Amino acid sequence: MDKKKSQRREFIKKATLAGMSAFAVSNLHASGVEEKFEYQDSGLLVPQQQGLKITGTFLDEISHDIPHQNWGEREWELDFQHMKAIGIDTVIMIRSGYRKFITYPSKYLLSKGCYMPSIDLLDLFLRLAEKYDMKFYFGLYDSGEYWDTGDLSKEIESNRFVIDEVWKNYGSRYKSFQGWYLSGEISRKTKGAIDSFYTLGKQCKDVSGGLPTFISPWIDGKKAVAAASGNLSKAEAVSVQEHEKEWDEIFSGIHEVVDACAFQDGHIDYDELDAFFEVNKRLADRYNMKCWTNAESFSRDMPIKFLPIKFDKLRMKLEAAKRANYDKAITFEFSHFMSPQSAYLQAGHLYNRYREYFGI
Amino acid sequence: MDKKKSQRREFIKKATLAGMSAFAVSNLHASGVEEKFEYQDSGLLVPQQQGLKITGTFLDEISHDIPHQNWGEREWELDFQHMKAIGIDTVIMIRSGYRKFITYPSKYLLSKGCYMPSIDLLDLFLRLAEKYDMKFYFGLYDSGEYWDTGDLSKEIESNRFVIDEVWKNYGSRYKSFQGWYLSGEISRKTKGAIDSFYTLGKQCKDVSGGLPTFISPWIDGKKAVAAASGNLSKAEAVSVQEHEKEWDEIFSGIHEVVDACAFQDGHIDYDELDAFFEVNKRLADRYNMKCWTNAESFSRDMPIKFLPIKFDKLRMKLEAAKRANYDKAITFEFSHFMSPQSAYLQAGHLYNRYREYFGI
Amino acid sequence: MDKKKSQRREFIKKATLAGMSAFAVSNLHASGVEEKFEYQDSGLLVPQQQGLKITGTFLDEISHDIPHQNWGEREWELDFQHMKAIGIDTVIMIRSGYRKFITYPSKYLLSKGCYMPSIDLLDLFLRLAEKYDMKFYFGLYDSGEYWDTGDLSKEIESNRFVIDEVWKNYGSRYKSFQGWYLSGEISRKTKGAIDSFYTLGKQCKDVSGGLPTFISPWIDGKKAVAAASGNLSKAEAVSVQEHEKEWDEIFSGIHEVVDACAFQDGHIDYDELDAFFEVNKRLADRYNMKCWTNAESFSRDMPIKFLPIKFDKLRMKLEAAKRANYDKAITFEFSHFMSPQSAYLQAGHLYNRYREYFGI
Repeated sequence: MDKKKSQRREFIKKATLAGMSAFAVSNLHASGVEEKFEYQDSGLLVPQQQGLKITGTFLDEISHDIPHQNWGEREWELDFQHMKAIGIDTVIMIRSGYRKFITYPSKYLLSKGCYMPSIDLLDLFLRLAEKYDMKFYFGLYDSGEYWDTGDLSKEIESNRFVIDEVWKNYGSRYKSFQGWYLSGEISRKTKGAIDSFYTLGKQCKDVSGGLPTFISPWIDGKKAVAAASGNLSKAEAVSVQEHEKEWDEIFSGIHEVVDACAFQDGHIDYDELDAFFEVNKRLADRYNMKCWTNAESFSRDMPIKFLPIKFDKLRMKLEAAKRANYDKAITFEFSHFMSPQSAYLQAGHLYNRYREYFGI
Repeated sequence: MDKKKSQRREFIKKATLAGMSAFAVSNLHASGVEEKFEYQDSGLLVPQQQGLKITGTFLDEISHDIPHQNWGEREWELDFQHMKAIGIDTVIMIRSGYRKFITYPSKYLLSKGCYMPSIDLLDLFLRLAEKYDMKFYFGLYDSGEYWDTGDLSKEIESNRFVIDEVWKNYGSRYKSFQGWYLSGEISRKTKGAIDSFYTLGKQCKDVSGGLPTFISPWIDGKKAVAAASGNLSKAEAVSVQEHEKEWDEIFSGIHEVVDACAFQDGHIDYDELDAFFEVNKRLADRYNMKCWTNAESFSRDMPIKFLPIKFDKLRMKLEAAKRANYDKAITFEFSHFMSPQSAYLQAGHLYNRYREYFGI
Repeated sequence: MDKKKSQRREFIKKATLAGMSAFAVSNLHASGVEEKFEYQDSGLLVPQQQGLKITGTFLDEISHDIPHQNWGEREWELDFQHMKAIGIDTVIMIRSGYRKFITYPSKYLLSKGCYMPSIDLLDLFLRLAEKYDMKFYFGLYDSGEYWDTGDLSKEIESNRFVIDEVWKNYGSRYKSFQGWYLSGEISRKTKGAIDSFYTLGKQCKDVSGGLPTFISPWIDGKKAVAAASGNLSKAEAVSVQEHEKEWDEIFSGIHEVVDACAFQDGHIDYDELDAFFEVNKRLADRYNMKCWTNAESFSRDMPIKFLPIKFDKLRMKLEAAKRANYDKAITFEFSHFMSPQSAYLQAGHLYNRYREYFGI
């Protein structure tokens, strides 16, 4: 504890020294107010560094439901530096295209009516990942069919070509190309999930010499479980049991070609985290898969959909992941919700709170 | 008028001198554009300083429906300085907890399943209020029951313990602890309002040697009253009359233990302000209560819920409060909607417009 | 191509030199990360400057559904400089008043119960337009009747006085007063559109010696046309044909007093642009009207209503306008969605992307 305290003091000192530009924020508007601080090193009420550190982030360039930041290469590179500074070693392009908007000049998708992008974001991300020594995961193309129909099986068709094309044109050129993200966001009820994940995962591995693959589904738990008490009631236990039963079936069908599962952590309540996480870890272990958490850094609880999450909520989720012995934490996503250069200024403050807590 | 004009000129000059960092905003993006201004001192079209000055603000840390800014002690302290600079002498923590998220390490609420916060925000606010010579009002705990059921009476149970605990641990330590905010946000139809406000107000006063208490209900007026003309029609008059009748009953039941009422000013139209404010003041006078206004600094009129209000709307509400001889204006709330360091940059501009108008 | 490439390189160099303050953004939060860039001059994947340049923008001061930025004269002047820097020569006040909130001290509208504004925005805009050598278009008053009832004909009554008053008090004083915007936002089905546009357009021209007028309706096309293929199906063609037939009738009825039509480009899909734009140009030519595009710079596709659009979407719309030989591109609107000083920081990045693409 003494060591942590002194680490924290050290951090605050550094932040203060480096803080001349942070300063500028406060004085953005000519208020005539001068800062005059006396820091109280009262410390946090909770022990530091009890959460699983975030070491991966999605890169959400394609704007499914998060507004585009219109960054150029300059901003993206700076963001990789911000990521690196807190220990992120893995970046995942959430999808390589969404409906007609794509991230790289795919001959196949262009021939199907997709629009030519003005920059090759895939190339940029792979290049930056290489430069900053990060692993890059490629997110498959999302035709929108699944969002419209709830049926994932149609995604197999287009991705058959995309996977081959991408591996040939980028995978062999960049050593940062280190894995695949099967981008369908399912819950347990999704039609065709096992088939499509199996088929896609297998193809990814076959072309790339077995590079790792992962999925990031959501937990269909929130409404079934009351959040009123720390102890799960009978009905709640059933909900967790059903989750286990259904995902046991899915993992059983896909574990040969899917290496990790990163459940989204935002659909369950904070006192359900342990119950669900324990099941997730047990299931992953049973099938020899890695158990990751997708620690959402945006808030699902506000009228504005979506702004950065309150730090304590993120902290509690990461602590639950550590308690459950998860293998890795990734987030959706750094650039809008945790980055010091995000258009949402709350994100930069979240970044600072995160660093304080982890003593970074 | 001459004096005001020269004050304004003085302000603009000062703002320009202090403006080097405001400047930075304009040039945030490397646009290559240089500023070259010639100020036209044309003055405002309306007389300055005709509104009631805002001297109090809620502190909304707990994120009921306003996204969290993730500020640390540094940002909070700077915000108190920004408040102080425009004459704010009263800060009110809007609630000490909301459902399972709480602002201080309450033994009682933790024992009921609430989550440990990472910092003691209550202690921080009391400390800052002390340092900047402000009065701090403590907002009671909100279990969420009222929002779910419309029934306030359940709030009595939990706050019975909270009030005792807080007074013992903080009230006696900080001379800035100067009052209580009974945080239920009712309109006239709320079940159990009189009972619960009476019970809670009495307990607050009893433990604290009679420190002042207040409430901040909303006016159930908007839909009943057409906004088309400056004169109230018969139906509209009825609406105001009913408001008076029902609040007469409520004030009659609570005035012994509630010292002030700060109606929210955002649910009625701008040309209804005078009619309702006149009633509110008469009622308050009748029961020897203080008549405050809760001048909302956020906009209820936009698709994004919620961003800072247009200055003229805030001005008109403050002018109506002054015309009605209100005792005090507080706002919900400074840190998101009026602060130069708000994540919503419109807030800093509102701050500047506000200062110009009041010649601060 | 060589020339363009070197232009781009030149731009990037300039941006980097001018970038010290942009820089400040990145470092807003004391992250301790230093920028260390090596620019890759890889160029864009699409040819530059193939779009129609935006040379006009609405000025949206009155906050119908876009939150107010609370700018003062200082910010407005800087914004005109930012506009000028990318070649904007025309500014259009979207409406001179909306319901009871008005932009200038109109004796007539004040007598009808409108509220006195704190500054004369109309005077400010005319003055700035004059200083920066831009054409100013005056947007008519919007009583709200049309939004409530879908009936435009009521707008004639109030604007009869507004037009006379404004021309007398401002039009004759400012040489920047160069035209009129008939502010009703109709689709093809609007009741009374032909009559009201004709009457209002005629009056505007009569009082002002024939200054140009324009309208900016929306295209009722989106839902009728599937966006799945590059080729329009039979049903889609019918939709375009109906658009042509109905607008032929409207243009026929108004072309003597309306000089230009700037259809909003945000209600149709990206691969419908050519089909609709070709019809619009043919119709405008047939009636000797100018064909403008209202290139929306905000996104209609996101849950947050509304934030800046993704650059590639804006680019595609401007490219379609150029292919269709449109006469002019204006945008709704610069100050929230493209300005470096917008409260939405994505806007400044859009500004930079726009400048890169056009080599400005």
